[in-house]
Amino acid sequence: MKKVVLAFSGGLDTSFCCIYLSKDLGLEVHSVVVNTGGFSGDELAQIEQRAYSLGVKSHAVVDETQNYYDSSIKYLIFGNVLKNATYPLSVSAERVSQATAIANYAKKIGAEYVAHGSTGAGNDQVRFDMIFNTLIPEVAIITPIRDLKLSREEEIEYLHKHGVAFNAEKARYSINKGIWGTSVGGKETLTSHETLPEEAWPTPVTSETPRRVTIDFERGEPVALDGNRIGPVKVIQELQAIAQPYGIGRDIHVGDTIIGIKGRVGFEAAAPLVIIKAHHTLEKHTLTKWQLSWKDQLGAFYGNWMHEGQMHDPVMRDIEAFLQSAQQTVTGKVFVELHPYRFVVIGVESPHDLMSNKFGSYGEMNNTWSGDDVKGFSKIFGNQVSIWHKVNEKQ
Amino acid sequence: MKKVVLAFSGGLDTSFCCIYLSKDLGLEVHSVVVNTGGFSGDELAQIEQRAYSLGVKSHAVVDETQNYYDSSIKYLIFGNVLKNATYPLSVSAERVSQATAIANYAKKIGAEYVAHGSTGAGNDQVRFDMIFNTLIPEVAIITPIRDLKLSREEEIEYLHKHGVAFNAEKARYSINKGIWGTSVGGKETLTSHETLPEEAWPTPVTSETPRRVTIDFERGEPVALDGNRIGPVKVIQELQAIAQPYGIGRDIHVGDTIIGIKGRVGFEAAAPLVIIKAHHTLEKHTLTKWQLSWKDQLGAFYGNWMHEGQMHDPVMRDIEAFLQSAQQTVTGKVFVELHPYRFVVIGVESPHDLMSNKFGSYGEMNNTWSGDDVKGFSKIFGNQVSIWHKVNEKQ
Amino acid sequence: MKKVVLAFSGGLDTSFCCIYLSKDLGLEVHSVVVNTGGFSGDELAQIEQRAYSLGVKSHAVVDETQNYYDSSIKYLIFGNVLKNATYPLSVSAERVSQATAIANYAKKIGAEYVAHGSTGAGNDQVRFDMIFNTLIPEVAIITPIRDLKLSREEEIEYLHKHGVAFNAEKARYSINKGIWGTSVGGKETLTSHETLPEEAWPTPVTSETPRRVTIDFERGEPVALDGNRIGPVKVIQELQAIAQPYGIGRDIHVGDTIIGIKGRVGFEAAAPLVIIKAHHTLEKHTLTKWQLSWKDQLGAFYGNWMHEGQMHDPVMRDIEAFLQSAQQTVTGKVFVELHPYRFVVIGVESPHDLMSNKFGSYGEMNNTWSGDDVKGFSKIFGNQVSIWHKVNEKQ
Amino acid sequence: MKKVVLAFSGGLDTSFCCIYLSKDLGLEVHSVVVNTGGFSGDELAQIEQRAYSLGVKSHAVVDETQNYYDSSIKYLIFGNVLKNATYPLSVSAERVSQATAIANYAKKIGAEYVAHGSTGAGNDQVRFDMIFNTLIPEVAIITPIRDLKLSREEEIEYLHKHGVAFNAEKARYSINKGIWGTSVGGKETLTSHETLPEEAWPTPVTSETPRRVTIDFERGEPVALDGNRIGPVKVIQELQAIAQPYGIGRDIHVGDTIIGIKGRVGFEAAAPLVIIKAHHTLEKHTLTKWQLSWKDQLGAFYGNWMHEGQMHDPVMRDIEAFLQSAQQTVTGKVFVELHPYRFVVIGVESPHDLMSNKFGSYGEMNNTWSGDDVKGFSKIFGNQVSIWHKVNEKQ
Repeated sequence: MKKVVLAFSGGLDTSFCCIYLSKDLGLEVHSVVVNTGGFSGDELAQIEQRAYSLGVKSHAVVDETQNYYDSSIKYLIFGNVLKNATYPLSVSAERVSQATAIANYAKKIGAEYVAHGSTGAGNDQVRFDMIFNTLIPEVAIITPIRDLKLSREEEIEYLHKHGVAFNAEKARYSINKGIWGTSVGGKETLTSHETLPEEAWPTPVTSETPRRVTIDFERGEPVALDGNRIGPVKVIQELQAIAQPYGIGRDIHVGDTIIGIKGRVGFEAAAPLVIIKAHHTLEKHTLTKWQLSWKDQLGAFYGNWMHEGQMHDPVMRDIEAFLQSAQQTVTGKVFVELHPYRFVVIGVESPHDLMSNKFGSYGEMNNTWSGDDVKGFSKIFGNQVSIWHKVNEKQ
Repeated sequence: MKKVVLAFSGGLDTSFCCIYLSKDLGLEVHSVVVNTGGFSGDELAQIEQRAYSLGVKSHAVVDETQNYYDSSIKYLIFGNVLKNATYPLSVSAERVSQATAIANYAKKIGAEYVAHGSTGAGNDQVRFDMIFNTLIPEVAIITPIRDLKLSREEEIEYLHKHGVAFNAEKARYSINKGIWGTSVGGKETLTSHETLPEEAWPTPVTSETPRRVTIDFERGEPVALDGNRIGPVKVIQELQAIAQPYGIGRDIHVGDTIIGIKGRVGFEAAAPLVIIKAHHTLEKHTLTKWQLSWKDQLGAFYGNWMHEGQMHDPVMRDIEAFLQSAQQTVTGKVFVELHPYRFVVIGVESPHDLMSNKFGSYGEMNNTWSGDDVKGFSKIFGNQVSIWHKVNEKQ
Repeated sequence: MKKVVLAFSGGLDTSFCCIYLSKDLGLEVHSVVVNTGGFSGDELAQIEQRAYSLGVKSHAVVDETQNYYDSSIKYLIFGNVLKNATYPLSVSAERVSQATAIANYAKKIGAEYVAHGSTGAGNDQVRFDMIFNTLIPEVAIITPIRDLKLSREEEIEYLHKHGVAFNAEKARYSINKGIWGTSVGGKETLTSHETLPEEAWPTPVTSETPRRVTIDFERGEPVALDGNRIGPVKVIQELQAIAQPYGIGRDIHVGDTIIGIKGRVGFEAAAPLVIIKAHHTLEKHTLTKWQLSWKDQLGAFYGNWMHEGQMHDPVMRDIEAFLQSAQQTVTGKVFVELHPYRFVVIGVESPHDLMSNKFGSYGEMNNTWSGDDVKGFSKIFGNQVSIWHKVNEKQ
Repeated sequence: MKKVVLAFSGGLDTSFCCIYLSKDLGLEVHSVVVNTGGFSGDELAQIEQRAYSLGVKSHAVVDETQNYYDSSIKYLIFGNVLKNATYPLSVSAERVSQATAIANYAKKIGAEYVAHGSTGAGNDQVRFDMIFNTLIPEVAIITPIRDLKLSREEEIEYLHKHGVAFNAEKARYSINKGIWGTSVGGKETLTSHETLPEEAWPTPVTSETPRRVTIDFERGEPVALDGNRIGPVKVIQELQAIAQPYGIGRDIHVGDTIIGIKGRVGFEAAAPLVIIKAHHTLEKHTLTKWQLSWKDQLGAFYGNWMHEGQMHDPVMRDIEAFLQSAQQTVTGKVFVELHPYRFVVIGVESPHDLMSNKFGSYGEMNNTWSGDDVKGFSKIFGNQVSIWHKVNEKQ
């Protein structure tokens, strides 16, 4: 019997796939769920139970949280990546890590097929397909939902026919929870002009008293929260637990999908937004003008290309080398104040702070250079434009 | 007697210049104040009175507000320009317009000298010097404050000696008010770790009830507020009057000065921040991926280069041509909700909205393409990276 | 009977399509050939004769040469576009113009189908498909060669069966001649390590005596050759007639195809290479540093995106607006010397030349600035890096 | 007696400095010449002899050739850096290495002053000043030639007065010879329209018989010539010895100086041009599209910023990290044919060649994807532009 690895979430689509792959296609189904920090232990246990109840041959949980941070989130922080100045790529980054982990798992257990439950209408199918084509080209891809184009009702009926009960009611909002943010889709996000109602947001706003937190960065990585050196993954998780109940980091993003249409999605991502702005502020104190400028360009491309599922293009490794190099001096503390629905970066403290008043404060004179130096500078710095005007206006 | 045009603000430094230029240098002083939207009629009248009381031969008010919008702010909106993702260039943009207007004025009245009150420690000296060198190279520049390096006390004493009284007390916060935002400097902004106290902000927070506003954009320009077609300058001014009392658009920016040191400055800029995010959201609905991408890069450069006083480099005209072209479809309404200290872009309505569900909604199937099309797309789109892995991993 | 417009070249593939579309699919075939400057009158007559002999209902010749220059070549010159610093996009640019012209023709005659003879292995299929999908989405695309995957022999046999004789011998080198260069493919270009033999190049080297030519540019366009104001299209054609017999502009390009694989192709393009280097030299004399820098970036993207068939993305119009604006001062004469297999740009003469020694010659002192000015400039220009080293090396 | 380190070349200007620094300023002169590959042993001995004859306290030769390659040339190759698509930065790169070596030497011997013989009219003064300000801010800079503005005759007379004879005749062409190319300036390069005469070029054309050479690259570095693994520095030197007598790599560059004017310079640089085109060709076979694209952008900036003397900006280290990462697969042989005045890159051989026909040859069908896949690809790849036209043209 041939083996198929199925990316399994426990939802309707992948439950359908379970039965379909074994009953209709006669394959030995090995379900796998990749945890990138979005699932609790309870949720993972429920998913496992469900998988076995659907008759899988084996079920595996791959914990990719640390690896996801090391291979993706770290660089999203280094690059201050917010797609179109808004979205921290919560889902996009996760999918890439999941697809990579599934490909490795399929290779490990020697599967001949790999299946995913993507429909034909979103980004995920492209990410899964491309990453499988690249990492396990010898393994064939099966996408029953995309190929059969069944309605929700037809899937439920099919499951029912095979003795599997499934609650027919669809959640009003589809939620995808991850360590780097939670996305929210619903009828409003299908329009261009409506916003999500309060009840759509997964985390209700329950914190009201302003609170200060301190994040310690070391070579660009958030290593401590309020002085506790708990490492980046835990900093993200604990900061998220503290800041999300303030309603921080909620927004709606409209952006370009890989398949060329515009997609709109709500998200709540308190920790990502706080960490990115804190990190960026620290960089503004410690990096040179051109480091900041090139990081902007490379970071934007890096985020877009990851979003489009191209994480295994070697250019991504080259950009990571740049970003890592640029973090050499991004070490220091950043002070942040949390308020309902917003936060303020108070300031930074860093041994690498270029604003050190030892070398001149803005607006105050100092001993390193004189007004005459600046006069000369202005003359030369403006020389070419001045010549251009002389040449082109005197004719 | 030789004429000097003096950029006059009525403050200590330029008051000193008035006397110094006439008494010590024997020049005929023609003071000029350029209003780029930051001065009220009362303030302008006071400045004029002060100028004549200091013995100027003539005093002129040049109203540049509309021209400032047309030549600079418009493109800052088109480019969604926020320096280092933060600062709308409130002061930088204004200085460039002012210097340009003063140069034109000096040419008009046939002055042999032009004077400005900049110290040797900031950005403004470079902007003034460069723009004068470019636009009026035949006019010599005099910068008494930079050259004489007098202390505040010495300037006051000098004025006193010439019969001019000047209040010796210095304001705790230096404020620069303009139509595109107001900057605030004080002892906290000279540190890296402190933020401005509530009382430092020019506009106290007095509005608390959430309020919706609608901004109409036409080819990228904000032409109407809540349906009233009052034109861009008035939209900015009225929106600022409505939104600033919410405390919206307050932040602290640390950035690279032209002279190479880091400078930190507080600012309040409700209208600029609301307009830029509204405009950007409309663009995300109406522009293609690569339009958005190139606008980001060109907009960032445009803002930096303007900040550095290089507005008369012809490359700026070329970028403006790009930005103007890209605004062709940026027409529509944007709905914004104002809250204390924050705002939310609710959504947009535009005949050019590419998210139109006539052509496929994200996550939902449609008739224009099939799952098979995407399968083929994924294969080809990932082809090169897939080949790279085959070539480089099988050896 | 339903109408199909067939992009017809007279070769085996499109001859097959003619018969197949009418006999097997029962369509009324309207063949069209788009001349972008690569066909002589004789060749066009032969193609027409062939079309009618294959039983087409109508045959049209669309002369796109001037339009091709106006919409594409002009901007390739403005942008100094050489893909990967080598290839003037001879074929890519032409295909885009041809596909656009065919789409317009299909719309004009109210065709329900459009057909092209591309195989499934190259760039052209993507360009034709995409441009038809964009410009005439209501017209269905038929690609018999790609779909039927017939061998050369099967096509010939099919034609024979329908009473059409076709010479079975294949040319050793496939040649695509156009106004912006001629491509050459053969067995050597299918390898990575062999070059084309002398006999593969369409134009033998017959000119040996060095010759000077003068090209007049006006706002970036080559308007005169050796003083004769014949307009850009004729300048290109006459310069090509003069320079190609020197063997100038021969090279082999290896680059990224749209479908992700690497493709290698020989080309001869004397006029394009001479014009681009001449134009670039004139720009180096007349544009500012940042105009040159941004033109490089935008030009490279423009060339790649055109190569990939995305000419109808509105971002291309935005880039054209930039490029057009940047040509304002690119007016003057460029002197070029032609030699066997190479050419030398001798120099330029332009009223906009920024090297005008009125404003300082490189390496010679002048009166506009002093050594002290440069000393001050150096101090300030190096200020940030100097501070960075003080901050980061003294710890 | 206070120590001054003098960057010494043996020419008129630095000979004048020798006497002036010791006699007029009373300093202990330590002359140093930095060899970056441009001087022969004989030349170095003559310079040393001259230094002692001018009464220096000590004279040192610092051999920086290998270090120059490791810190600069290597990255210029990785980045295929040709300023404005023309100039390999022969002089610019060298000056940066020399200034850095002199700064280190001054620090080593504990000098209180450092002197250079630059005039106030070129790039070199800025490079020397900036690098000294950054690396040895505690050491004062003395620039006698720039400050005293003496004519050639006055310098000679001054030397004569101090008992030093100097040949009054000036060479018709000023030559700067280095391992990465030799620059040539003369009366023609001060115009925009004249080229250098044959006799101006330092290396006469004496080789006429075409010759093939093979360059082996390893991770981007040229390590072997014709199979002899002699290391990059020797590859450059031997290739230069072979190729320059063909007259290869002669050109005239006009570009932007640091001080804002345009400068024009001739150069001969056979080895740099051959190596860069060979390296680039190998990259076109082995790198992905986006690696090539980003390398272009980063390489261009890297070259310009080095040219402007900003080599010690940490962003340069970040770019080097990118470039180094991107060279991982740039290993293989490149075959080049040398002809009088030109060369041809014949082809490459590399285990990392992405054009490997195992994965599909351009223009030929294969088994990895089908025509249907490309059809789907074209539909999705053109989707956004197609939607844009539907939205914007139907109104």
